[in-house]
Amino acid sequence: MLIVAALGGNALLQRGQKLSVETQFANARKAAAVLAQLAKKHQLVITHGNGPQVGNIMLQVEAALGRAYPVPLHVAVAESEGEIGYILEQSLLNELARRKLKKRIASMLTQVLVGKNDPAFQNPTKPIGPYYGKQHADALARKGFSMTKINGGYRRVVPSPKPLEILEAEAIRKLVKMGILVIAAGGGGIPVHRKGKALTGIDAVIDKDRASAVLARDVRADMLLIVTDVPCTYLDYGTKNQKAIRCMTVSQARHYIHEGHFAEGSMLPKVEAAADFVAHGGRKAVITDFASAEKALRGKAGTTMVK
Amino acid sequence: MLIVAALGGNALLQRGQKLSVETQFANARKAAAVLAQLAKKHQLVITHGNGPQVGNIMLQVEAALGRAYPVPLHVAVAESEGEIGYILEQSLLNELARRKLKKRIASMLTQVLVGKNDPAFQNPTKPIGPYYGKQHADALARKGFSMTKINGGYRRVVPSPKPLEILEAEAIRKLVKMGILVIAAGGGGIPVHRKGKALTGIDAVIDKDRASAVLARDVRADMLLIVTDVPCTYLDYGTKNQKAIRCMTVSQARHYIHEGHFAEGSMLPKVEAAADFVAHGGRKAVITDFASAEKALRGKAGTTMVK
Repeated sequence: MLIVAALGGNALLQRGQKLSVETQFANARKAAAVLAQLAKKHQLVITHGNGPQVGNIMLQVEAALGRAYPVPLHVAVAESEGEIGYILEQSLLNELARRKLKKRIASMLTQVLVGKNDPAFQNPTKPIGPYYGKQHADALARKGFSMTKINGGYRRVVPSPKPLEILEAEAIRKLVKMGILVIAAGGGGIPVHRKGKALTGIDAVIDKDRASAVLARDVRADMLLIVTDVPCTYLDYGTKNQKAIRCMTVSQARHYIHEGHFAEGSMLPKVEAAADFVAHGGRKAVITDFASAEKALRGKAGTTMVK
Repeated sequence: MLIVAALGGNALLQRGQKLSVETQFANARKAAAVLAQLAKKHQLVITHGNGPQVGNIMLQVEAALGRAYPVPLHVAVAESEGEIGYILEQSLLNELARRKLKKRIASMLTQVLVGKNDPAFQNPTKPIGPYYGKQHADALARKGFSMTKINGGYRRVVPSPKPLEILEAEAIRKLVKMGILVIAAGGGGIPVHRKGKALTGIDAVIDKDRASAVLARDVRADMLLIVTDVPCTYLDYGTKNQKAIRCMTVSQARHYIHEGHFAEGSMLPKVEAAADFVAHGGRKAVITDFASAEKALRGKAGTTMVK
């Protein structure tokens, strides 16, 4: 079975943990144990978030303005694919060697095409980078950045356009079919659009789950596995009526979305990505956490989405 | 023919040019025109230097200390592979599309194994990052960094160990054999060594030409093409007796090296890399510049090294 496994940002940096490269390597070692187990039986493409890492890079870019050349957001996303892809690949190689599994890994930079006229460009919503005071935020706004007030501070917001196509999908599929484990579409991929006929990077971030659903479609995966920090999705999450969803169809999912069961910026994009993949011909999508991943593949845990 | 083409740092940022992402894209467009022409007839793996880019990242890391988590040098190399790989890949995709060549590109993060007991670790020689004043340099030295005085300022120096093996070579060879153009081993690759059985990153930089020679050997390339900023190598370079070398054997190369014809940190590592590749079974190596690359492949320009 060809599985696209989308790791949440929490796979490498969990809330409350010290942000560092060491923390990421330590978490990657734990993630690698589960992923190696999956890689033993299945063909695997691993995608991952990059929120804390790209925020950290943008902080560094800003702190060095005037001393070092700045990189725009799309290049910072490319750098974060380098950082995270390397940490994941090395951790996985070590875990595979420990289990005496002979498997190669390829970590690929990934560009994701978005539409020039995507409405997200008129309405930037995705916060990135650090919190600023009002004065600093006003200065950035005068430079043309979109800013928003969050939790009493100010953050830059960027567009989060819809991913249309993974430019490296064919190479990724070929690698997987040859038995190579692939790490790709990190941070939702590097956002590019067509300016005339030429590809050009654009300052935006693509939702990692949506990009993973498009990648799963483009490489013709059997399953999209979305790994998050809860074992499954719930109706009435966080209330006394909370009820685990073990299985849902795409139309049930749309109904639940309409009823507002899934939190925006959290479970909602995951359920939408799962539904998109299945609606576009994918066999099934599963939402679960690392601890339940193996059972979830056998339908014994997690939330499974089917047509 | 399978060619590993090693691009010098000057392919993306030339001396005297403004350091910026825009400059890199502009230079990458020019390089892409030559590379696309080669890709039309040959299977191509492209490697590249990362001096200015990794220096820039280390400047940013330092400027943000206390505000953003720092990344060690091996992670900074991984980030620079993200930055440069993306710029090269996008520029090449645009050039290939302009010529209506249907060719896919894969930019791969690359780890390069070095020996734990490489003597370079006892004697760091490779300067990286910014120039410091004496006070700052002394403070860094007290933190355990090796510093050296260069041109009246102080710079950090790191070990430049010998590359032993390209960990992703098999995946790279498979991709190339399927007609996919590969960008790999950026900046000489991410230096890793074995600590017990586990791979671990290490603060060092690997010479890009040496790493390219090992990659060319490991993917069983027919030719190593080293692209630099002079059309060929010379005896008595820069003197009135300067004489172009059109062809040399490995033993002639060793003789010329012994006589001191090639400048350390400049032409010397390129001639050594070319000789290493041919001595280890490679058919031929060519040293030339972009303008002469095509003619050099036909033996009509550049310096060709044969057994």
